[in-house]
Amino acid sequence: MPEAYSVAVMGATGAVGTELLELLEERDFPLRELTLLASSRSAGKELVFKGRSIKVKAISDEDFADIDLVLASAGGSVSKEWAPKAATAGAVVVDNSSAFRMDPSVPLVVPEVNPEAALEHQGIIANPNCTTILMAVALWPLHQYQPIERIVVATYQSASGAGARAMEEVKQQAQAILQGEEPPTEAFPYPLAFNLFPHNSPLNDQGYCQEEMKMVNETRKIFGVSDLRVSATCVRVPVLRAHSEAINVEFKQPLDVAKALELLQAAPGVKVVEDWQANYFPMPVEASGQNDVLVGRVRCDLSHESGLELWLSGDQIRKGAALNAVQIAELLVSKQSLKPKALV
Amino acid sequence: MPEAYSVAVMGATGAVGTELLELLEERDFPLRELTLLASSRSAGKELVFKGRSIKVKAISDEDFADIDLVLASAGGSVSKEWAPKAATAGAVVVDNSSAFRMDPSVPLVVPEVNPEAALEHQGIIANPNCTTILMAVALWPLHQYQPIERIVVATYQSASGAGARAMEEVKQQAQAILQGEEPPTEAFPYPLAFNLFPHNSPLNDQGYCQEEMKMVNETRKIFGVSDLRVSATCVRVPVLRAHSEAINVEFKQPLDVAKALELLQAAPGVKVVEDWQANYFPMPVEASGQNDVLVGRVRCDLSHESGLELWLSGDQIRKGAALNAVQIAELLVSKQSLKPKALV
Repeated sequence: MPEAYSVAVMGATGAVGTELLELLEERDFPLRELTLLASSRSAGKELVFKGRSIKVKAISDEDFADIDLVLASAGGSVSKEWAPKAATAGAVVVDNSSAFRMDPSVPLVVPEVNPEAALEHQGIIANPNCTTILMAVALWPLHQYQPIERIVVATYQSASGAGARAMEEVKQQAQAILQGEEPPTEAFPYPLAFNLFPHNSPLNDQGYCQEEMKMVNETRKIFGVSDLRVSATCVRVPVLRAHSEAINVEFKQPLDVAKALELLQAAPGVKVVEDWQANYFPMPVEASGQNDVLVGRVRCDLSHESGLELWLSGDQIRKGAALNAVQIAELLVSKQSLKPKALV
Repeated sequence: MPEAYSVAVMGATGAVGTELLELLEERDFPLRELTLLASSRSAGKELVFKGRSIKVKAISDEDFADIDLVLASAGGSVSKEWAPKAATAGAVVVDNSSAFRMDPSVPLVVPEVNPEAALEHQGIIANPNCTTILMAVALWPLHQYQPIERIVVATYQSASGAGARAMEEVKQQAQAILQGEEPPTEAFPYPLAFNLFPHNSPLNDQGYCQEEMKMVNETRKIFGVSDLRVSATCVRVPVLRAHSEAINVEFKQPLDVAKALELLQAAPGVKVVEDWQANYFPMPVEASGQNDVLVGRVRCDLSHESGLELWLSGDQIRKGAALNAVQIAELLVSKQSLKPKALV
């Protein structure tokens, strides 16, 4: 009989938490027990998993003594406090927050790119930022064949990146605007419906926002190229769920389009979506709910002899967050790197 | 008494035509007579100008014998047929369509960039594509000081670029989606509300769409740099009216941010919009209805020592079309390059 695990989902009531539960069910993760954790505010709620109702517990009431694996998605400050405690108690934590991503002792893992890094964990494994994951999945197969020299990316990020409440707010804003009323702005600083604005994360002294620096620094760490040249412009757009990215890539040597397409078509986690006759390429509404990153419009860069332009859309909550975390957990299981405490 | 002109607006009932009328009124263009032209389908409609109702005539009923200036915005095929006839009849045509833009005998003019070109017209002057105009206004002051080597741009284009009907359709789509119904798709091939997709203009053999090639070729012609390296990714987003652009610029030598800002602050047609504390930068809803191109987030490119990143939003119908055309007409008037036939 295969091993089964005691899993805790931390932040179970959020947008990513909800998706984590769906994925554990859908992918039939080998569970012995499932513990749902959230803030004390959400404690007591009941969530349904495989037809069974489970009561959400407050994180502060959990000692992690019986937990093998924590899938954490409750924000950076919660992870900073609780992930080390869970790890000390012997659980492995796959953390969706940015708290540990750049910690040299914590692997930052996209299973299609650097699965081996996951096996070197010391109790915590970080899940990269959503935009970074989507870009890494698409560019890694190309980089393996022809090393990348520089990336210039512009993003088109959906409301889901700011959580479930933000997704709801964009709909409320659209409704208000259509009725000639003032749109509510609680989750976002400005109306996002029928509008867009540069990503509203804190800006550094060089004028890059946190979201952009995540794309720069996390891509370097995941690819294992500490001086990879990356620049990003991150923009929030009035889309509900999936992110899109316009990526300009310069390679050390020219990489022709046919070869790039061949590499992408063979790459895990990538689906090439191109119908040039119909002018049909990746779109966020179609990427929503899909596990693969949709990649298309692969073309030679007219402005650089070793450049390629490409376009992608990917589900920010699935591959951009929850799915990547579950895939890391599955990887640990398949490599026998996760041991149920009950059997130890 | 200053000279006054007999002006015809061709395509008077469209989104750009409506704006042309507003601008002629708002800027008090010296009019002796105003003729409104449209397709025979729209002929007979009445439009109000300066409190006076004017009946729209069919283009095919006009011989242009008494017209000094034509502001044309009725699409490429209409311009191809009627602009030469109007020019032959002695009128000067400022044409908003793409029909003549790359014709070597036709000046392609952004008044802030190459006003002198307008004066060399042979009866037709072309108004550039909206995304090109917005980018040219923002980059020209920088290029004058430190020559540009390469531009990589990603656009966020509003529904207005596809006309008044498309703007209405995006609102109808949003309403349908909010009510759980199928969104209508007549003006666009795919739903645009809560979605986005690469610009649906015809694609060339290299995989670039027409809209992108306009940014490449028109920028080269306006800047007078035939081999300027430009690559563009054009994307339609669910915004009603103004376009935005994420622009990565490489200069021949480094240009520091302070100097770039100083140049932009002094540049005609540009408004620098940056509040780094408040994370407040150009947004399409705020650019709508404004004549200036809003530019912000000017920062050093982390990936290139001679690169800058910047972000802009500009009203696609105003500066991106109607305003630029009226400014060309005003330029001709101020340079005495437009003579009323009545006085000849």
